[in-house]
Amino acid sequence: MKPFFKVTDLASVLKLVPGFEPVETESAGLLEATGRILATDIFSEHDLPGFARATMDGFAVRAASTFGASEANPAYLTVAGEVAMGESPSFTVVTGQASRISTGGMLPKGTDAVIMVEHTETLDDTTIEAYRSVAPGQHVIAAGEDFLKDKIILTAGQILRPQETGLLAAFGHRDVTMYRRPIVGIISTGDEIVPINQLPQPGQIRDINSYSLSGQVRNAGGVPIPYGIVADDYPALFEMCQQAIQQTDMVLLSGGSSVGMRDFTIEVLSNLPDTEILVHGISISPGKPTILARSSGKAVWGLPGQVVSAMVVFKAVVLPFLEHVAGLIPGQRCLPTASARLDRSLASAQGRTDFVRVRLYRKDGSLQAEPILGKSGLINTMVKADGLIQIDINTEGLDKDTLVAVIPL
Amino acid sequence: MKPFFKVTDLASVLKLVPGFEPVETESAGLLEATGRILATDIFSEHDLPGFARATMDGFAVRAASTFGASEANPAYLTVAGEVAMGESPSFTVVTGQASRISTGGMLPKGTDAVIMVEHTETLDDTTIEAYRSVAPGQHVIAAGEDFLKDKIILTAGQILRPQETGLLAAFGHRDVTMYRRPIVGIISTGDEIVPINQLPQPGQIRDINSYSLSGQVRNAGGVPIPYGIVADDYPALFEMCQQAIQQTDMVLLSGGSSVGMRDFTIEVLSNLPDTEILVHGISISPGKPTILARSSGKAVWGLPGQVVSAMVVFKAVVLPFLEHVAGLIPGQRCLPTASARLDRSLASAQGRTDFVRVRLYRKDGSLQAEPILGKSGLINTMVKADGLIQIDINTEGLDKDTLVAVIPL
Repeated sequence: MKPFFKVTDLASVLKLVPGFEPVETESAGLLEATGRILATDIFSEHDLPGFARATMDGFAVRAASTFGASEANPAYLTVAGEVAMGESPSFTVVTGQASRISTGGMLPKGTDAVIMVEHTETLDDTTIEAYRSVAPGQHVIAAGEDFLKDKIILTAGQILRPQETGLLAAFGHRDVTMYRRPIVGIISTGDEIVPINQLPQPGQIRDINSYSLSGQVRNAGGVPIPYGIVADDYPALFEMCQQAIQQTDMVLLSGGSSVGMRDFTIEVLSNLPDTEILVHGISISPGKPTILARSSGKAVWGLPGQVVSAMVVFKAVVLPFLEHVAGLIPGQRCLPTASARLDRSLASAQGRTDFVRVRLYRKDGSLQAEPILGKSGLINTMVKADGLIQIDINTEGLDKDTLVAVIPL
Repeated sequence: MKPFFKVTDLASVLKLVPGFEPVETESAGLLEATGRILATDIFSEHDLPGFARATMDGFAVRAASTFGASEANPAYLTVAGEVAMGESPSFTVVTGQASRISTGGMLPKGTDAVIMVEHTETLDDTTIEAYRSVAPGQHVIAAGEDFLKDKIILTAGQILRPQETGLLAAFGHRDVTMYRRPIVGIISTGDEIVPINQLPQPGQIRDINSYSLSGQVRNAGGVPIPYGIVADDYPALFEMCQQAIQQTDMVLLSGGSSVGMRDFTIEVLSNLPDTEILVHGISISPGKPTILARSSGKAVWGLPGQVVSAMVVFKAVVLPFLEHVAGLIPGQRCLPTASARLDRSLASAQGRTDFVRVRLYRKDGSLQAEPILGKSGLINTMVKADGLIQIDINTEGLDKDTLVAVIPL
């Protein structure tokens, strides 16, 4: 008797994400931080900047000294000194005085604004004319204007972009506590699969999935470890699964698209210690025969062997799990998709979530999405595609010119 | 007398891209290929697949043997054998016969279609009933259907996504000729800048740009080399520029936002051997005081010191040069931007290209862009921003609800 096979819908599968634990944390140098996921909240330990800075070259003044100044009626100011970059000015500027200052310089005591050098005329070594009036705070970044002391400035679980890395630099974090990169074991299965350095004989095909899945893992911030190819041999697959589960944070088995091979994968997974089959079949296309098990707390996936199916399932199903295991909090990426107009109608079966490959092109300035239909064994369709569009489970199809969200591939 | 300072418009600056040479090539392992840039055209050395494969589990048949078959009037077929995975079947299947086959199996001689196992009934060891007719080619990937022999399948200068990496695996390319990653030297200048492990004294600020620019270089596929901080000291900056130009493929100087410091940078660059100042000021905002020189054939940039300006100039101006130096051919990225509706009107000066930081949010299902206005010395504006929008040089402003392209940050 075959094991009970009841497909799960995509939304229900994604609800299983919190059932897995994020990886541990580690300390990493700030130059390696961009693209990594922060593991602690970061507080501002001081005001940023710590002092009022000029944003223009010119003269630091008490703004009131310039009130009413104009081309016709300039204000005459006495030069009280010059601010040296990187130093705290020792002098004080009073009403009627001005101090030379460069962009980034610290405002001397008594000043609250900067008048641009272009709006002044130097009369002699100690006197300038100011042709404009400036308001208090003009051309100045106030102390604490960027960040005030003792606030949360970055949150555990957020991904560090270059600007967040820069912010950590501003607060002196030379080393940062991050989630370590999750390690993902990749095992290709099937008697027909040969290593890529072998010339395939009739009936054989090279191992594509180890490489395409490794690329996807790497793009997701993980570290792929390919374990190579296992033939349809129970003890060999059992042994390799056990090893991969011990050594990694997640395991991707690919191949075994045939019913027999799927049963074989299920049999191996069912007999692994501390292992539960969570999902056996998902109502998505392509990718229906996907298996998810939890083994020693780790997600073990049985992905379809067809190259397109394996890649689509990775993008649509595995990725949210991997991001969670990597420590990412949800809703981090506000820019996931481009929008495009579908350039033809697409039918879809209800009761199933479809992922359709699309090529994008511009027509009259608008982005158009052309569906690339083709068998899920054809990698050329993925090479031609720029992205995927999702047709939801209760949608019968999409009309031409529908605005669709495109998940980049 | 100050050097002549004539700002260049952005389009004219970008026309200088081809004046720089891409980096050399190197061989890299296929597991490291994703995200790298291919340096040679790749040809298909054989058909892919090399033989006709089943895409379903079932029976390989001569399609004609099933013509007219239905539930009411099944075709009776004799089982002539079973295709072993990864092997070339030794037998031939004639009309009226069928051969068991699994997904991915090689079609035996004489067959041109597969009938799904669900559409058959096994009567005994050697006889099945087929309830459907199949057309020639049904449930089969033909030899060469994915790629035909002797075609260009990938082009020099294209970036390798996971699917291109998979395609290289399919054709047995264990090592691939890529452009090496461009090395980008980063030098921070200014007497007010201190290393990030120092507590800034009044008047001082930590070196943010070395870290934010390193992150941007890394995200662009380059290798950042921070050279640290140089004070406003002619021999020191001259020496460090010379060293960086010798050791890297591109140099980013940041800091020196003051007029005096800009003049100083220009003076150093002008006196370097084999160096020509190409651009001294660009009509963009932020980022107007940007300098571009060509020194020993390499691009040397004088970026503004303000953190926002430096990052925006990197994204809008430096990146196209860096991608060219990295070997990327133009037009590679079809999914550069998301589209959003501007949630308020924005004014812009004509004669200048504006880059405005925006935060994205969803409202009634549509993506809205909220401009984040703020001084270019405030890194918090970059941390809040999801992207940049560009207001072109001849545009006076953008109305509320205008659909804008958002460059992700």
